[in-house]
Amino acid sequence: MSENIIIMGGDGFCGWPTSLHLSNLGYNVTIVDNLIRRKIDVDLECDSLTPIKPISQRIKKWYDLTGKTIKFEKIDISLQYNKILNLIKELKPKAIVHFAEQRAAPTSMISSYWKRYTVENNTNATHNILCAVVESGIDVHVVHLGTTGTAGYVTTPMDIPEGYLDVKVQTDKGEEIMEFPWPLHSPSIYHMTKSMDFLMFEFYNNNDNIKCTDLRQGIVWGCQTKETMMDENLINRWDYDHWYGTALNRFLIQSTIKHPITIYGRGLQTRAFIHIQNTVECIQLAIENPPIKDKVRVLNQVTECHNLLNLANKIKLLTDAEIKYYKNPRKEAPENKLRFDNSGLLKLGLNSITLDDGLLYEINEIAKKYKDRCDISKVMVDNCTWNKNIKIDGIGYDNPQ
Amino acid sequence: MSENIIIMGGDGFCGWPTSLHLSNLGYNVTIVDNLIRRKIDVDLECDSLTPIKPISQRIKKWYDLTGKTIKFEKIDISLQYNKILNLIKELKPKAIVHFAEQRAAPTSMISSYWKRYTVENNTNATHNILCAVVESGIDVHVVHLGTTGTAGYVTTPMDIPEGYLDVKVQTDKGEEIMEFPWPLHSPSIYHMTKSMDFLMFEFYNNNDNIKCTDLRQGIVWGCQTKETMMDENLINRWDYDHWYGTALNRFLIQSTIKHPITIYGRGLQTRAFIHIQNTVECIQLAIENPPIKDKVRVLNQVTECHNLLNLANKIKLLTDAEIKYYKNPRKEAPENKLRFDNSGLLKLGLNSITLDDGLLYEINEIAKKYKDRCDISKVMVDNCTWNKNIKIDGIGYDNPQ
Repeated sequence: MSENIIIMGGDGFCGWPTSLHLSNLGYNVTIVDNLIRRKIDVDLECDSLTPIKPISQRIKKWYDLTGKTIKFEKIDISLQYNKILNLIKELKPKAIVHFAEQRAAPTSMISSYWKRYTVENNTNATHNILCAVVESGIDVHVVHLGTTGTAGYVTTPMDIPEGYLDVKVQTDKGEEIMEFPWPLHSPSIYHMTKSMDFLMFEFYNNNDNIKCTDLRQGIVWGCQTKETMMDENLINRWDYDHWYGTALNRFLIQSTIKHPITIYGRGLQTRAFIHIQNTVECIQLAIENPPIKDKVRVLNQVTECHNLLNLANKIKLLTDAEIKYYKNPRKEAPENKLRFDNSGLLKLGLNSITLDDGLLYEINEIAKKYKDRCDISKVMVDNCTWNKNIKIDGIGYDNPQ
Repeated sequence: MSENIIIMGGDGFCGWPTSLHLSNLGYNVTIVDNLIRRKIDVDLECDSLTPIKPISQRIKKWYDLTGKTIKFEKIDISLQYNKILNLIKELKPKAIVHFAEQRAAPTSMISSYWKRYTVENNTNATHNILCAVVESGIDVHVVHLGTTGTAGYVTTPMDIPEGYLDVKVQTDKGEEIMEFPWPLHSPSIYHMTKSMDFLMFEFYNNNDNIKCTDLRQGIVWGCQTKETMMDENLINRWDYDHWYGTALNRFLIQSTIKHPITIYGRGLQTRAFIHIQNTVECIQLAIENPPIKDKVRVLNQVTECHNLLNLANKIKLLTDAEIKYYKNPRKEAPENKLRFDNSGLLKLGLNSITLDDGLLYEINEIAKKYKDRCDISKVMVDNCTWNKNIKIDGIGYDNPQ
């Protein structure tokens, strides 16, 4: 009998392709989702550029194509604790993959309502999973999508380590080496909840020996994986709006519809990236190689780092787009260089897909193909207030270059 | 006009004497409390050894004695966000003192229900305060009761610093000095929420320049302060049960009722302590000296450290009690030495009250005076399960000495 995997948030941007990838590999996949991401689109009056199908149609099409069954449970894991507990007891899963969090930094900063929703949802979701795993008494590996953002967006004098670092401290007897966690940073409320998650993993790992992997993921780019490309009914979500669209996606749609590429600040902020196909492979690698150490395993799920201007220039080369600079709503260093130690996943067998490999596909098969579904009003920044001193009004300021 | 102070959790063990102390100093004190601590006593079938009066009677007696008015708002700050926001806008307080958290480690470990209650209540309470301060636009100093427990209960080769430590790290160019936060530890779910709180303070301090002081307090001992001693109607809470009673209080009541002193493990675990009178003075010092640095201010609110056996022996000397050893429900080092840098509060003017100064008062004026109110069944450990490998059955094991 094949093993059970529960994918919390399995209808979302990372969750859906992960569900298909693991189902394709022969795991019995159960998706748990409250469909909130689709409902947030209603609130924000946004929609995926790609025409995603309802979850029941997605699952039916997958069965028709492959004969493989994916189960779906509509549960709000931040609230319905007993349903999670019963599901874990029933399925005795090898792993729970936890994507079920409000996952956009700008969304988490729109207003007090969104700050509070993000904190309540994310902390309770993570805690309920861990608490239920302990109560179930079943040995489940919890695989969580963290973010490189909790490692900080400042230039560091070394590769950012995978969670922990040996440091020298001054003691009574001179210098000694101690292992310290790499400091947790929180550039937004969203990031803050991911930092808080890490403390929960450390507690449940230490107190109850729960196996936990925290995958500190870079910004995911790309829309499709091998499985989601099998049929248009399986197509993955692709957000381009200023709340959920990542910089790269927004640059792609902007260049396609002949809108200037909007860079906040001077574009010298460096970020880490990974392709969605690599994301699903990393999840697989984490599940198939559970941690054995008596510690939370942290893996930097990153394949390359670029600054935003560099990204914009890559797209400009392919599309001849114009670049415009706007005031940065984030309180962050105007310029930084980022480097990650990603040896953990490389050693487990990850083969990196680079931006240079995949950008043209994104332009031709996603941005250009679905550009008529784009609401141009959503590609600019809106009235999201990151802090009380910065008002985002969408007015461009002088090009600093 | 005197300045407003809001005391969140102002009906509790630390909150009530702090409210009286600040009111006595001339501040306009508003207590916010949902009275949950009294209601938890109903659930756990426990009660304060001291006969505490309802909040309205306490406040009336204070007014009759001093002519000073303390206001009371019954608000659940983990849920009623808009009420907090409106109160902050109305009062424009100089400081908010935040005690409004489930504050017992054993209680937080009773069951999934209590774990989840502690996480939901504590994280939402802290986040709602910070979010409301930002939304109000008012420059409020948030003073939070943290715990020395988040600094860890292992022997360290130096005094535990006040939040941050310079360490040497290996970089591309050799060794460099970086400032790291002292690692956040979570010996229980309760402690975990205090660690999570700290990340919220760091975020709101960094993003919105909110002035935050995290007072990492040792175990508070003593029942009374100068103000609560003024009249029996003002008497402070004194818990002796296995959920809310600290080791010292349980030892005191056990020795008074001729029950053996119950030590978990060998009693060589060291803890930090502070007297309740010093607690209220530390809060005052924090309020009157708000932080100016662009960073969360951490102060170790500690006056002395002892191991549990040392405490028990102090009481044994005064009462001729017997000591018995029980299996330790906590997953912790069986022996540790703890040392804290508490120079921050000492420099601000704190005069330490030592255990040797006050133990006799606790025995004669609290434990002996109210011993007839003691329910002996509550002084032993109950069915609280700290982790799945340790069952607490209350059966003594061999005396290790």
